[in-house]
Amino acid sequence: MRMVDLIAKKRDGGTHSREELRFIVDGFTGGDIPDYQMSAFLMSVFYKGMEDGETAALTQLMAQSGEMVDLSSIEGVKVDKHSTGGVGDKTTLIAAPIAAACGVKIAKMSGRGLGFTGGTVDKLESIPGFRTELPRQEFLEIVKKTGICVIGQSGNLAPADKKIYALRDVTATVDSIPLIAASIMSKKIAAGNDCILLDVKTGSGAFMKEMEDAVKLADIMVRIGEKAGRRTMALITNMDIPLGRAIGNVSEVREAVETLRGRGPADLSAVCRELAANMIALAGGGEIERCRELAAKAMEDGSAFQKLREMVKAQGGDVSVIDDPESFPKAGIAHEVLAPQDGYLSAMDAAQCGIASMLLGAGRATKESVIDHSAGIELVKKTGEPVKKGEVIARFMTNDESAIAGAEETYGNALSFSAEPPVQEKLIIARVTRDGVSYF
Amino acid sequence: MRMVDLIAKKRDGGTHSREELRFIVDGFTGGDIPDYQMSAFLMSVFYKGMEDGETAALTQLMAQSGEMVDLSSIEGVKVDKHSTGGVGDKTTLIAAPIAAACGVKIAKMSGRGLGFTGGTVDKLESIPGFRTELPRQEFLEIVKKTGICVIGQSGNLAPADKKIYALRDVTATVDSIPLIAASIMSKKIAAGNDCILLDVKTGSGAFMKEMEDAVKLADIMVRIGEKAGRRTMALITNMDIPLGRAIGNVSEVREAVETLRGRGPADLSAVCRELAANMIALAGGGEIERCRELAAKAMEDGSAFQKLREMVKAQGGDVSVIDDPESFPKAGIAHEVLAPQDGYLSAMDAAQCGIASMLLGAGRATKESVIDHSAGIELVKKTGEPVKKGEVIARFMTNDESAIAGAEETYGNALSFSAEPPVQEKLIIARVTRDGVSYF
Repeated sequence: MRMVDLIAKKRDGGTHSREELRFIVDGFTGGDIPDYQMSAFLMSVFYKGMEDGETAALTQLMAQSGEMVDLSSIEGVKVDKHSTGGVGDKTTLIAAPIAAACGVKIAKMSGRGLGFTGGTVDKLESIPGFRTELPRQEFLEIVKKTGICVIGQSGNLAPADKKIYALRDVTATVDSIPLIAASIMSKKIAAGNDCILLDVKTGSGAFMKEMEDAVKLADIMVRIGEKAGRRTMALITNMDIPLGRAIGNVSEVREAVETLRGRGPADLSAVCRELAANMIALAGGGEIERCRELAAKAMEDGSAFQKLREMVKAQGGDVSVIDDPESFPKAGIAHEVLAPQDGYLSAMDAAQCGIASMLLGAGRATKESVIDHSAGIELVKKTGEPVKKGEVIARFMTNDESAIAGAEETYGNALSFSAEPPVQEKLIIARVTRDGVSYF
Repeated sequence: MRMVDLIAKKRDGGTHSREELRFIVDGFTGGDIPDYQMSAFLMSVFYKGMEDGETAALTQLMAQSGEMVDLSSIEGVKVDKHSTGGVGDKTTLIAAPIAAACGVKIAKMSGRGLGFTGGTVDKLESIPGFRTELPRQEFLEIVKKTGICVIGQSGNLAPADKKIYALRDVTATVDSIPLIAASIMSKKIAAGNDCILLDVKTGSGAFMKEMEDAVKLADIMVRIGEKAGRRTMALITNMDIPLGRAIGNVSEVREAVETLRGRGPADLSAVCRELAANMIALAGGGEIERCRELAAKAMEDGSAFQKLREMVKAQGGDVSVIDDPESFPKAGIAHEVLAPQDGYLSAMDAAQCGIASMLLGAGRATKESVIDHSAGIELVKKTGEPVKKGEVIARFMTNDESAIAGAEETYGNALSFSAEPPVQEKLIIARVTRDGVSYF
């Protein structure tokens, strides 16, 4: 087998066998296939796509390129949850404890934020003392004891994905649904959970700007997961505007705590309840309506909040900030953003909001950037709400005064105003299972 | 400017400005743009093509990446000739002396053969003593003195093309008309001639299998040449079957001599006369009909043959083998191939014939292979001719007995037989000038 022939086959729209894909994945990961051949292959995949069987085989080969985490020593059904990334998306901090409170085992590896999107690991690390790097054995022990543990991706998980993604990033081959699906699912499969719930975001602040693309991506990921023997489902949720009213690590943890206590914003509460209900359903909780009731009950009776507390404690975090979120360290500067006109806030571009927050110190422009956990934005007004000129519409938290002007300009560009109330977009758009797509 | 953005632009069908192409060509040649980004870009060009203006700009930037040969010290009109490569294609050895005999200045750099195609430099080197590597000054002096000199490509000619071609070869991005055109024309423009005649082959033994592709390639190359200030024309000629009756370096030189003396095969004589006539026309020889007469006369009166003799002498070659081609060193083994059946030879795949000859030692499987100049094939019977079972249809010349069986099998596969005489294909198909395409 020669790589140049395999490139030509894909270039001309051919379908690769599992053995051919093995040659490519193993050869590239092992260094026998150079970057310049792999990037030509990836560009061919960008144009010609992959059959579902090819994408599934590619994903499994990428998963098997490194450690396959063994969670079998944990009793019960282990359910993973993955979001394709958004702004203000603190759902893991809420949905996972709810599901755990209902008996689902959560042994989860999460990622860090980059660019305008945040990451669960960064948010958890804003809790003083919280450890996101744990030895594998301690990770398993905490799940066995408390039913939940969330750490950073560690070990040699899907090294093929890491190497391929780095190449895609610099060769304009990121935007390919089969490659995105293989990248996400290879890590999820290697992470060893029995079931996987995917939260595929769509809208201005999401990777998938178009709903049809989000559904397509969700559908292929669900089938890849099922083919690998994992019960897999996906929700398509809206990311046209940030989720909740908090962007930034400390603020998002605080909002997560409030939501678990039943005092969170309506949009965030609804999405988290639905995510948790589907995690419960995947774990065998029965009809989705019953799972929704279980999730709602865990929020109301405080058991979900207790579960978060247990997890924070077990992972070395300072529980006092969870009990009293106002005691979180605060940023030195609070800057008020005022409405430039009367009217209704008719749109707020989530990506621009995320960039403004990043500029204030809450996110990473590059992988090497250092995060200011206390920085962020409080969204005082959100899409659909009436504003009066001069009224406070947002509050910036930062320790970098020089960043405020740029962030305010970016944030201003994110907003649109109208004389009439705008039509509100659906929050939870669709549910994708192995049986197909159902729209809400 | 970032290369990843330029890749994305071409990926999405965009058109690059000259400045963007300069960034790419200079960056890649200088080592600032890595192979893996260039190959992704080249694959995008494979799919999305290039506007004519882009291809012309790319070509000029590639030409300017190294030495631009200065032929201005040579008086008269310098005309280059380029063939896209074929089997039995010894036309340069014939057409160039004819044109030179009619006053056209020939200061030509030629290539070596690879795979099933031969190269003029290899053919010339089968003449004992013939030097294809000359200092630039000596090259110019010979042209000034004799009107003709043909050497190998030397110096730092279009290094961008060399580096890009090496990458295309291993990333399945060779088959792209704008990239082929830029590769050929960058070297021709750097080589410094006033006019360029292109011989674009089409058929089973050509790079362009389809006539439409050959015309498309010829058309864009003519426009690139004209845009660079060189009078440029192209002929589209048939390469479904080998040209003439000789394949292999010594045999082809011998056949070239016979053709210059008016005793050559009809197909080869016709193509060479037409090529020479068009070179004369490019140099300002007037109406094409008059140029055809001039070419025919130079063949008949021996002046073209004398021109070849002068060139061989000036370049250190043994003129005695030109005067008496039978005195060329012969291969140790002559093997007769017999007709397997009665009928008409209805087709002979030129590429397969070329591979058979390569197996006998006449060509290079890889760039490092060593050539046996005396090896080759005499095509005793060609397409359209009747044969009787057991009759000699070809003669193999080789010094490698172990190669005969494989070559005979390959050669056998190249041939088809029919009960009725086959319809003969046109030999000279079209002429492409800046004014358009005219078919013969």
